[in-house]
Amino acid sequence: MNKAAIIKAIKEKKSFLSIGLDTDITKIPKHLLSYDNPVLEFNKQIIDATADLCISYKINTAFYECNGLKGWESLIKTYQYLPKNTFSIADAKRGDIGNTSSMYAKAFFDESASEMSFDSVTVAPYMGKDSVSPFLAFKDKWVILLALTSNEGSHDFQRLKDHDAMLFEHVIKKSQEWATDENMMYVVGATRGEAFLEIRKHAPHHFLLVPGVGAQGGSLADVCKYGMTTDCGLIVNSSRAIIYASNGEDFAEAAREQALLVQQEMAAELQKIGIS
Amino acid sequence: MNKAAIIKAIKEKKSFLSIGLDTDITKIPKHLLSYDNPVLEFNKQIIDATADLCISYKINTAFYECNGLKGWESLIKTYQYLPKNTFSIADAKRGDIGNTSSMYAKAFFDESASEMSFDSVTVAPYMGKDSVSPFLAFKDKWVILLALTSNEGSHDFQRLKDHDAMLFEHVIKKSQEWATDENMMYVVGATRGEAFLEIRKHAPHHFLLVPGVGAQGGSLADVCKYGMTTDCGLIVNSSRAIIYASNGEDFAEAAREQALLVQQEMAAELQKIGIS
Repeated sequence: MNKAAIIKAIKEKKSFLSIGLDTDITKIPKHLLSYDNPVLEFNKQIIDATADLCISYKINTAFYECNGLKGWESLIKTYQYLPKNTFSIADAKRGDIGNTSSMYAKAFFDESASEMSFDSVTVAPYMGKDSVSPFLAFKDKWVILLALTSNEGSHDFQRLKDHDAMLFEHVIKKSQEWATDENMMYVVGATRGEAFLEIRKHAPHHFLLVPGVGAQGGSLADVCKYGMTTDCGLIVNSSRAIIYASNGEDFAEAAREQALLVQQEMAAELQKIGIS
Repeated sequence: MNKAAIIKAIKEKKSFLSIGLDTDITKIPKHLLSYDNPVLEFNKQIIDATADLCISYKINTAFYECNGLKGWESLIKTYQYLPKNTFSIADAKRGDIGNTSSMYAKAFFDESASEMSFDSVTVAPYMGKDSVSPFLAFKDKWVILLALTSNEGSHDFQRLKDHDAMLFEHVIKKSQEWATDENMMYVVGATRGEAFLEIRKHAPHHFLLVPGVGAQGGSLADVCKYGMTTDCGLIVNSSRAIIYASNGEDFAEAAREQALLVQQEMAAELQKIGIS
């Protein structure tokens, strides 16, 4: 999906919600454990119940890798079940020297090699340009680069300051030499709304992927107040608060109810910028 | 393997060589393609031919992920084939918020969940303490944290300077609040020998994992001159220069010859610190 298609989906669905499939087999409803692949069955039912309310699904690869071969199979099959009109995110936080990043790009973008072709992958910036650019070599695919994350450890290095700019600002500025707002987004945590002011100084038109709303405590209103552009410019992810809304047989229905609440709040925010 | 066991292996084998299994199906000898799992067969023959010359094998996960489910199976089976008296490295460059890093730690350390229990995993530091500490919760396992890498992009961010210390120095100093030289190593690229002087100022006793000798152009003599401790303190990795020494039927023998040359050079360096 290119940028225009993402904006079109936001306008049609009145939503900029991404649902995070951080599916943990120890947290899903017990009645699913009798299925051959409980994680996949859980994901399918969540997707079926929410696809009209969100514009994106984010698959956190760690939750699949930890289950070994069966987990990687669930990852592939979940990818294959995603509706083609939603923006798919491999939340993998990869990044290595050039020839290795090329292999990671194949893993998530080249269906003929890996059976998966996500629209985007999250990438860690520490190793610089040649660790990121192999992902950009794929047409119509996106890099979502870590900038300012929502966790406690984000204070350890991301705010170190060199020449009046913090590390996350250097990441945003430097990476714009490699990519445009048509093939790069940034991860910006929702836990401090005002931080979006600093981000928008350097990336006024880029889409931002915003985790941390919901279980991690971020406020959607603040994110919109400080981070929204005239095109919306935000994809806000919620994982646990939606997918684990209930752990009974009504889990998919409960997930839908939670997603609907967020979508309605998003529709109100979109109205403020004339999308209604 | 704990630190004492690594040092013991170095003394016994007169080697601090790690062989990188960056196995690319398009680069392995053609006669292997008739095997059910050519990558696994290649790895087994390389391991059989070199196990007495190296103290470690480093598996670069990207080269397995890019082959989808079959690739992940090769990763598991290669792990399972590694000799138990060698130090195993999952070169995965992972790192995410705490609950996600816990899942990555299970993926590489918890055999009951994932069929793999490497001695160590490489971790990217960008997201700070809570992205690293879940790996440290596993007893007798190691985090190998990216500090100063060997690629061109290492200049983009790793040398940004805050208060008289560069980012990679902050990473080394800060991370010592979370771990010791018994459960953390650092990745330091070999492309500039003098850089080891700066590293050793902050980490005089830690083991360093050094990629970039061989195909990437680093000099072993320089690495030893500036980076070696009285316990050796170095694990030097070579991937392409060894495993692709020949692409004929003699590939394993040719890999052994290359590994032997490196081991002999290492034995001479070890002699200088009294290990002979």
